[in-house]
Amino acid sequence: KIGYLLLENGETLPDITIAYQSWGTLNKDKSNAILINHAMTGWSDVTGWWPQMVGPGLPFDTDKYFVVCSNNLGGCAGSSGPLSINPINKKPYGKDFPSVSVVDWVNSQKQLSDYFGIKKWHIVLGGSLGGMQALQWSISFPESLNKAGIFAAAAKSSTQNIAMNEVGREAIRKDKNFIDGDYLLHDVKPKNGLKTARMLGHITYSSEAIMDEKFGRNFQDIKSKIDRDVDYQVENYLQYKGEKFSDIFDANSYILMTKAMDGYDASCPADGDLEQALSLVKAKLLLVGFDSDWLYPPKRSKEIQLAAMNVNVSCSCVILEGRQGHDSFLFASDRYVNILKAFIEAE
Amino acid sequence: KIGYLLLENGETLPDITIAYQSWGTLNKDKSNAILINHAMTGWSDVTGWWPQMVGPGLPFDTDKYFVVCSNNLGGCAGSSGPLSINPINKKPYGKDFPSVSVVDWVNSQKQLSDYFGIKKWHIVLGGSLGGMQALQWSISFPESLNKAGIFAAAAKSSTQNIAMNEVGREAIRKDKNFIDGDYLLHDVKPKNGLKTARMLGHITYSSEAIMDEKFGRNFQDIKSKIDRDVDYQVENYLQYKGEKFSDIFDANSYILMTKAMDGYDASCPADGDLEQALSLVKAKLLLVGFDSDWLYPPKRSKEIQLAAMNVNVSCSCVILEGRQGHDSFLFASDRYVNILKAFIEAE
Repeated sequence: KIGYLLLENGETLPDITIAYQSWGTLNKDKSNAILINHAMTGWSDVTGWWPQMVGPGLPFDTDKYFVVCSNNLGGCAGSSGPLSINPINKKPYGKDFPSVSVVDWVNSQKQLSDYFGIKKWHIVLGGSLGGMQALQWSISFPESLNKAGIFAAAAKSSTQNIAMNEVGREAIRKDKNFIDGDYLLHDVKPKNGLKTARMLGHITYSSEAIMDEKFGRNFQDIKSKIDRDVDYQVENYLQYKGEKFSDIFDANSYILMTKAMDGYDASCPADGDLEQALSLVKAKLLLVGFDSDWLYPPKRSKEIQLAAMNVNVSCSCVILEGRQGHDSFLFASDRYVNILKAFIEAE
Repeated sequence: KIGYLLLENGETLPDITIAYQSWGTLNKDKSNAILINHAMTGWSDVTGWWPQMVGPGLPFDTDKYFVVCSNNLGGCAGSSGPLSINPINKKPYGKDFPSVSVVDWVNSQKQLSDYFGIKKWHIVLGGSLGGMQALQWSISFPESLNKAGIFAAAAKSSTQNIAMNEVGREAIRKDKNFIDGDYLLHDVKPKNGLKTARMLGHITYSSEAIMDEKFGRNFQDIKSKIDRDVDYQVENYLQYKGEKFSDIFDANSYILMTKAMDGYDASCPADGDLEQALSLVKAKLLLVGFDSDWLYPPKRSKEIQLAAMNVNVSCSCVILEGRQGHDSFLFASDRYVNILKAFIEAE
């Protein structure tokens, strides 16, 4: 619980809870803290969704560093969100949970830093939406972090990103169990819509080449078909992944998270001038893009680098081979690990 | 009406109707006939969906050529399909319309050629799914066409193509008005699902660059919002296009058409050996790919070219600049027009 939070849209969210997990020990001068931000549908157990990177002896070495990961506000994995009880009417917020933004998340995490007494994070980092958050940290609180790691991310979502998210939202909103966002009050869940949205999400997180390699045009074995309408293995895989996701995620949260992602534009406060927006950044930036990522392709990382360098912000940008598309940021490769280790350990 | 048709899957479809339109006059020796195949959701009025290319004085000059375009079997624009009456039970076929394939379409069009008494088409051509059909014409009936024009197409759909289509189908199947495909009997239409499918389709037919150029991150004017959930112009555009499409297209047809597209693999009869599949082709092939097309990217055209050249099939492949993504094949540019004109007029 971190008390109240004044949101970017002017509303105030009372009694908020930020769910976090931490690993390792904060040292005496509180200089070994690392904040990891999860991607859109992630949660605070970073050792669960990034097992190759966080742990004893791994790049984010929990024997040396105090590693913190918090669930974003508006999520459905512990922090205040649409599933939380609205203190005003004692019912779940549902669709009435205020729209939150990347800036709001960073502000809420600043309150979390104060709770720990951490004046300056050694690094704030993340992939995808978590990378946008790391970028925003370096803009919002230039004095409060030494370095920012921004992986498979962008300074803003593209028109195509928004368009893809809107298709997912449309599928959810038109699910007969969505009931205009009030499904909790009717004790149902818009699982079908959420499933369709996730199936599309999966395609965009992947790459054409890896899907081709994994599934090709192979037919699904008739005995293991999830649904009788399935012909190809890739259909079965998407059906399975979508179904699983729709069991665990909340639809109002999904809409809120995608809207936050669509709405992010680091240059907005500077009227679209990214250089000006970055001009006060003091953290050293590491940008990593992956060649097969078509959702937030390498050029999006390079745009940030160019703007940063033009205003003398220390910034490295590395484009790595990554076979997994946008999801490449989740997988360890020798080059990726070496770059991260060097970045973490540099003064 | 062309009588019955034996389908690739072994079934026989009785009393089929092929809706076609024609322009210009068939000459005495019946040597000036051009067959244009429409894309997935197209129809027989090619002057409606390809107005820059077909007409007097245009590349497909209706003053000189006899131009024919037919609606594909299984469609919902005149030819026999799910909306037609099943002679067995006197009710609309609906979901029971047999699954048809690109090979079936070509076979049905061969019967249409016989009806006209056309022994050899001057050209058979098309874009996207229509291009696959033109390729299949050159394989199925090598003696029956002089040239084949294959634009923004491929010898088979990729894993990602199948995956995208499956998301659209999933949205349709889970629409509460789909009723397991029997919506016609209940006098309803799964418009919401069809709308979501079309919204996704639109994104894949477009390109990131053109969407960015047309809509950017601009907000939709509040007075012209189609839906209160719309924030951005691109959302409003997709909502509008999806809504319009769902008014006119039939959902069972959509599923059938996407399945036919997914199922196409020119190399299938040759056990995956495209060169062998093309070895009997006698038509001259013209392949055109467009650089911003990410659904059927230029490399798919080049794959066909490579296989064709290895078995001495006359084949040209041109990759053009096209700002409209996959839809580029629909728009005239000077280079595109000049290439088509030269191809049409060559001996």
